[in-house]
Amino acid sequence: MFESLNPLIRPRSIAVIGASDDATRIGGRPIAYMRQQGFAGGLYPVNPKRDTVQGLRAFPDVASLPEVPDVGLVAVPGEAAVDAIEALGARGTRAAIVFTAGFAEVDEAGAAAQERMVEAARRHGVRLLGPNCLGLFNAAVGFYPIFSSSFESGWPIQGRIGIASQSGAYGTHVFAVARNRGMGTSICVTTGNEGEVTLGDVIGWMAEAPEVDVICTYAEGIRESDRFLKALELARRNRKPIVMMKVGRSELGGEAAKSHTASIAGDDAVTDAVLREFGVVRARTTEELLDIAYAAQKRIYPANNTLGVITVSGGAGVLISDAADALGFPMPAMPEEAQKALRDIIPFCAPRNPVDCTAQAFNLPSAMGDFARSMARDGGYTSCLGFFTQVGGSKTVAPKMRAQMKQVMAEHPDRLWVLSVIASPEMVREYEEDGFLVFEDPTRAVAALHAMGRFGEAFSGMPAASPALPRVTLPATTPTEAEAKRILAEAGVPAVPERACATPDAAAQAARGIGYPVVLKILSPDILHKSEIGGVLLNIGDEAALREGFATLLARAAERAPGARIEGVLVAKQITGAVEMAMGIVRDPVFGPVAMVGLGGIFIEVLKDVAFRRCPFDAAEAERMIRSLRGFPLLDGARGRPGADVAALAAALSALSAFAAAAGERLAAVDVNPVLVLPEGHGAFAADAVVEVT
Amino acid sequence: MFESLNPLIRPRSIAVIGASDDATRIGGRPIAYMRQQGFAGGLYPVNPKRDTVQGLRAFPDVASLPEVPDVGLVAVPGEAAVDAIEALGARGTRAAIVFTAGFAEVDEAGAAAQERMVEAARRHGVRLLGPNCLGLFNAAVGFYPIFSSSFESGWPIQGRIGIASQSGAYGTHVFAVARNRGMGTSICVTTGNEGEVTLGDVIGWMAEAPEVDVICTYAEGIRESDRFLKALELARRNRKPIVMMKVGRSELGGEAAKSHTASIAGDDAVTDAVLREFGVVRARTTEELLDIAYAAQKRIYPANNTLGVITVSGGAGVLISDAADALGFPMPAMPEEAQKALRDIIPFCAPRNPVDCTAQAFNLPSAMGDFARSMARDGGYTSCLGFFTQVGGSKTVAPKMRAQMKQVMAEHPDRLWVLSVIASPEMVREYEEDGFLVFEDPTRAVAALHAMGRFGEAFSGMPAASPALPRVTLPATTPTEAEAKRILAEAGVPAVPERACATPDAAAQAARGIGYPVVLKILSPDILHKSEIGGVLLNIGDEAALREGFATLLARAAERAPGARIEGVLVAKQITGAVEMAMGIVRDPVFGPVAMVGLGGIFIEVLKDVAFRRCPFDAAEAERMIRSLRGFPLLDGARGRPGADVAALAAALSALSAFAAAAGERLAAVDVNPVLVLPEGHGAFAADAVVEVT
Repeated sequence: MFESLNPLIRPRSIAVIGASDDATRIGGRPIAYMRQQGFAGGLYPVNPKRDTVQGLRAFPDVASLPEVPDVGLVAVPGEAAVDAIEALGARGTRAAIVFTAGFAEVDEAGAAAQERMVEAARRHGVRLLGPNCLGLFNAAVGFYPIFSSSFESGWPIQGRIGIASQSGAYGTHVFAVARNRGMGTSICVTTGNEGEVTLGDVIGWMAEAPEVDVICTYAEGIRESDRFLKALELARRNRKPIVMMKVGRSELGGEAAKSHTASIAGDDAVTDAVLREFGVVRARTTEELLDIAYAAQKRIYPANNTLGVITVSGGAGVLISDAADALGFPMPAMPEEAQKALRDIIPFCAPRNPVDCTAQAFNLPSAMGDFARSMARDGGYTSCLGFFTQVGGSKTVAPKMRAQMKQVMAEHPDRLWVLSVIASPEMVREYEEDGFLVFEDPTRAVAALHAMGRFGEAFSGMPAASPALPRVTLPATTPTEAEAKRILAEAGVPAVPERACATPDAAAQAARGIGYPVVLKILSPDILHKSEIGGVLLNIGDEAALREGFATLLARAAERAPGARIEGVLVAKQITGAVEMAMGIVRDPVFGPVAMVGLGGIFIEVLKDVAFRRCPFDAAEAERMIRSLRGFPLLDGARGRPGADVAALAAALSALSAFAAAAGERLAAVDVNPVLVLPEGHGAFAADAVVEVT
Repeated sequence: MFESLNPLIRPRSIAVIGASDDATRIGGRPIAYMRQQGFAGGLYPVNPKRDTVQGLRAFPDVASLPEVPDVGLVAVPGEAAVDAIEALGARGTRAAIVFTAGFAEVDEAGAAAQERMVEAARRHGVRLLGPNCLGLFNAAVGFYPIFSSSFESGWPIQGRIGIASQSGAYGTHVFAVARNRGMGTSICVTTGNEGEVTLGDVIGWMAEAPEVDVICTYAEGIRESDRFLKALELARRNRKPIVMMKVGRSELGGEAAKSHTASIAGDDAVTDAVLREFGVVRARTTEELLDIAYAAQKRIYPANNTLGVITVSGGAGVLISDAADALGFPMPAMPEEAQKALRDIIPFCAPRNPVDCTAQAFNLPSAMGDFARSMARDGGYTSCLGFFTQVGGSKTVAPKMRAQMKQVMAEHPDRLWVLSVIASPEMVREYEEDGFLVFEDPTRAVAALHAMGRFGEAFSGMPAASPALPRVTLPATTPTEAEAKRILAEAGVPAVPERACATPDAAAQAARGIGYPVVLKILSPDILHKSEIGGVLLNIGDEAALREGFATLLARAAERAPGARIEGVLVAKQITGAVEMAMGIVRDPVFGPVAMVGLGGIFIEVLKDVAFRRCPFDAAEAERMIRSLRGFPLLDGARGRPGADVAALAAALSALSAFAAAAGERLAAVDVNPVLVLPEGHGAFAADAVVEVT
C-alpha cells in the first residue's frame, strides 16, 4: 500500500527544478552527486537561464522536458516552489522533493503557502516530500536528491539498513556514524515539514521494500496515526525490526490537560505505549540505535531469548550479569550434567552462566570450542556472548580461538553469536566476515542482543484481539458523577453501590439500605473534582453524623463553589480492605483515545507509575498493562495479604477502552479514581468517576 | 598515610622469586616487560636452578641478593610462596606481589595458607598485594610486575589516569580500551584476593600520588571500610575524581536479613550511598567509566554546573536536552538580550539553549565564534557543548570553525569545552591538542560533563558534620515494642503517645486518658512483627470495643504465637492525617550501621523508594536523604494538602543515626515503621518500633 512512494525513492528519472551549475549550491549538489555515483536514470536540469548545467542539457521548464520525470526535485525559492508542484503535477509526475524552506516552520504566511503547495500535490496525485527537507538518497542506484555535505568524508556503504528521519541533519549524522562503523545504509529519507509524505509513509515503504531489512528511524513527534500505525503493523508482519530514536517530551496540550489523568501523561508516554504495542524498540542514544541495527542485520530474532556468556574474566561476567538483570534478559544456568563436563575440562572453571573458562582456556586449544559447543547445545542459549577482551585480538592466541568458535557457530547457525574483543579493525572485520557480531563493550552487546528478543516477541505475537464495541450514547454535556458511573456501568465498568439523594431524609434512608459506614459526596454537574472543595466525607458511622455531613457538604459547596448547581449528595458504601487503583482515558491528538491504569490516590501523580495503551484492547492486554506496573505487587498479595481481583480490574479496564473507542470524539476524558479492587473473586468497583464530554 | 605502598608501586628495585628464562611464562613475562620498557632500578631474578635468567644474573635465594629489594614478586607455587614472604620479610623487604593462585579463592585449605602468608607479611611489615593477583604496572618508570598478555597489542600511553581494580582481567581490559582511545593510564594495580593490600589502600595511594590526577576503579565488593573511607576522603580533599565500576548485587546476609528493613536493602545500595557520600561517580559501563575519566583529565570541576549547547541540528538539540533532563543537568536559557543579538546575526536561529545556529553558521565565518562567545560570556555556562557532526570533520568548513572556537576557548579557559563531531582520528587529535574534549556521541558527552559537576559539588562541599552521640545502654536482649520506643525516645526519636497495659481495666483507663479512637497492639518481647499474627487492631472507638479487642489480641497470640511471653497490650493514640514513613538501621558487615528512610507501609517493599546513609549524620543530611526520595512530594503538600513536618522527621532520623552509631555492635537492626509525620510544626512520631539486640 506504500508503493506510491516508489517514484520518490526508486525512480527511473528525475527533473531538478532550480538546477545550478555550481556543484556546491543546493540546486547543484544533487546533480553532482548523482553524476559521481552513476545514477542510470534520466537526469534533467530545469533552469530557464542556462543551456547546460554541469555539462548536462538544461531545459527551460517542466513542460519542455523530453519525458515525464518520475520525480521532481524542487530547489527554487518561495512561491516558485508552489508553481513547480503545479507544473510537475500537470505534466503527470507522481512525486516531488521540496528543499525549499520558509513554509510552516517559519510563520503563518509560510504555513498558508505550504497548504497551497500540498493542495496542489494532492489534486495532481503527487507524493510530496518536504518542504524544508534535506532530501533523500538511495545509494544502491546512485540516486542522491539531497544537499547534505556529508559525502565529503565518504559515500554510504551498500547495505540493508534504511534510515527514516524527520530531521535532515540528524538523519545524515546517523548515516555518517553508521558508515564509520562499516555499516551499510543504502537508503536514507528525511521528511522535513511533512507537508504530505510523513514518517509513517517512509517506514511503510521500507517495510515493503526488498532493499531494506532493518529500519532506523528518528522522530520528534508523530503527526498522523493512520499510515504510521499501518506502517508499524506491516513491518511487524514482514519481520522487519524498527529501532526508533524518539526525542522530546512535551505535555499533552489543549482540552485533555484539564483532566487529572492527562496531567500525569504526556504524549511521549503515549507514543511510547504505541511503539511497544508494535514491537518497535526505542533507543536512547545514537550508539544504541546503531548497535541494535547492527545486530538486527543478522535477521535472527529469538522470541524466547536467553543469554549465555562465556568469559575469560569473572569480573566481566558479573558486569554482564548486572547488565542483563537490569534489562530483564534471562541468563538461565547451564544444566548440571554439562557443568560437570566443563569442570572435567578445566577444573577451576565456573560453569554455571556466565561460564568463566578462566585464562586456562588459552592453554588448551580445544577447550574454547568445547565450552562454546556445550553452551549452544546443552545450554540452548539463543544469544551467545563471548567476552575475550584483548585475548581475542592477540595475533598468537586469537586464530586458534577463532577457528574453534567458527566451527561451533557453523553447527548452530540459528543463534546470535557475539564476541566482545579488543582487536584491530582488520581482525574485527575478519570476525564479522566469519559471521560473528563484534562489540568491544560487553554492556552494549547485551543491550543489542536483548533487543533482538524483543523483536522476536513482537514478530511471533498476534496483534491483540479487539473487544466488541458497545453502543454508546453520550449525554449532551459532562454528566454528574452518578450519571457518569451509570454510563460506565452500562459499558461494563461496575461502580460501588450508591444512591443519589436530594434530601437528608433520602440520604438517611439510602444509608440504612446500604449499611453504615458510608461515604458522602457532593452531587453537582459543575464540580468535577470534589475533594478539592472538601466535597467528600468518609467514615460516616450513623444517622446523626450523616445528617450533619449532609449539611456540611452543602455549606462547603455554597462557600467554595458558589453558583454550582447542587443536586444533593451521593451516599455510597464505604469499602475497606480494597487496593486503590486509578484508570482513565485521555484523548491523544494523534492516536485518539488512550487508556491508562496505575496505583490510585496521589501515588499516581507522585510516582507516575502508569501504563498506557491505545483503545480498544481485550482483557488479556489489560492484564498485561496492570502487571507491568512497578506497584503490581500491591495487587498480587504482598506481605501475606490476599491477592486482589486483577481479572475484574482487567475486565473493567478493557471495557473502559471499548467504551472510549465507541464513544467518538466528543468524549474528552474519563477519570475513574479510585477503582477499589477487592480480594480475588470479589470484583473491582469505580468509587468515583468523571466522564468529560465536549 | 598510604606511603607504605611506595615500595610496591614506585620501587627502586625488585626481586622476582620464581624467575623464568621463558619470556612467555608467568615468572618470565615481568622480567621481559621490564627490560623492554627500561626499568632503571635493580632487577634480580631468583632461581636456584639457573645462573642467568633472560641474560640477567640469577640468585639462588633471597638471602643472597646483593641488596635488599624494595619489592619481591612471588611466582612460585603453593607453600613456597608463603616461604618466599618469610624470606623477603626477614631480609627487610617492605612490599610483595604474589601472583600465586590456589589460596582463599579455592578452598578452606587455601584460605588457611593465605592466612599464614598474610600473618608472615604483617609480622615483617611487608605490604602484600595478592595472592592470586595479575600484578601491576607503573609505565612512567617501566615497572611491569604483571603477567598480562595485554601488551602484545601495545604499551600503555603515558598519562595521569590511575586504574585500581579488584579484577586483573577487567583492569587490563580497561587499560587496553583506554589505550585504544588514546588515553594515558600510567598506573594500573590489580588486587586479586586482597589478603593484605585492599582496593582502599590502592585508591588512597593514588589519592596522594603526584603521578595520578584521575582514579578509575573496579570493585566487586568492598572488604574493609577503614582504609577505603580514608582513601575516598583523601581523594576528595585532594580534588581527585574517582569514577567507579561496582558490579554485583548480593543480598545483605546473615542476621540483618531478618529485619524487614534489611530485606529491601542489599549491600549494593549501601555501597552506593557510601560512594555518593564521598562524591564518587559510579559508571554503569566501561565506556562511561572511560568517558568520565577522559573528561576529568581537564581538571575542571564546576560545583554549579550548567550546560550550554550550540548545535547545527535542531533534532540533536532536542536529543541532548532529553539526555540532560534525564540526568537533572540544568540547561538554563540564554539571557533575552543575548538571544536578540544572536537573532541579529542569524535571523532564523533558535537562540534559547540549545542554541541552534542552523547550517547558516557555516556560511558566515564569524558567526560560530560569535555564538560560542555569547554562550560563554552571556550564558555563563560552565559546560559548553558544540554539536557539529560531520561538519566538524569537513576539510573545507572545519578549519574556520576550529579557529573561531579556539579563540573563544582561550578567552574562557575555565569552562569545559566539548565538541561532538564526526571526524578522522587525525582531526580529533588536533581538536584535542587545542584543548577540546571530543565525543562523537552527544549523549555520552552530556553524561561525562554532568559527572564533572558532581565531582565539583563533592570537592566544594565540606564533609557533613557529625551530630553529638548520646550515651546508649542497650538492654541485654531485644526489648518489647514499648521498651524499644522508650529507648528511642530517649535518644531523640519521639513516639506516639501510648501506654503499656497488662489488664483490660488498665487499658480502658489508659484509653480514657489518651482519648478515643485508639490502636491496640499485642505486647510481647517474642513477637517482633505484630501485624503478621494479626496483633494490631485499629479504630477502637469506645470502651466496649476496647475490651473485646483486648481479648481478641490475647486469643490470637495464644493461637498464632504459642509460647510467646505476653505482657499485655499497648494502647496508643490513633493518629490520622499523617504521612506514613519508615526509617531504620541495618548493620552492614563492612560499613557498620547504616540508616534508611522511605515511604511507609508496604510501599517501601514494593516500590523500593529508599535512601541510605552511613551513621551518624546531622539533620541537614537527613533532610537531603528525605528530599531525594521519589515519593518526597507526598511530604511536600501534594494536591493542596498541608506540607508535612519534614524538619521533625529529619531530626528524628539524624537522632536515630546517632543512636545507632553510639549503640555499638550489639545493635543488630532498628525498624521504625510507620513513622507518622504530622503537618508542619506538629512533629513526627514512631508508631511502631523494633530494636534488635544481639
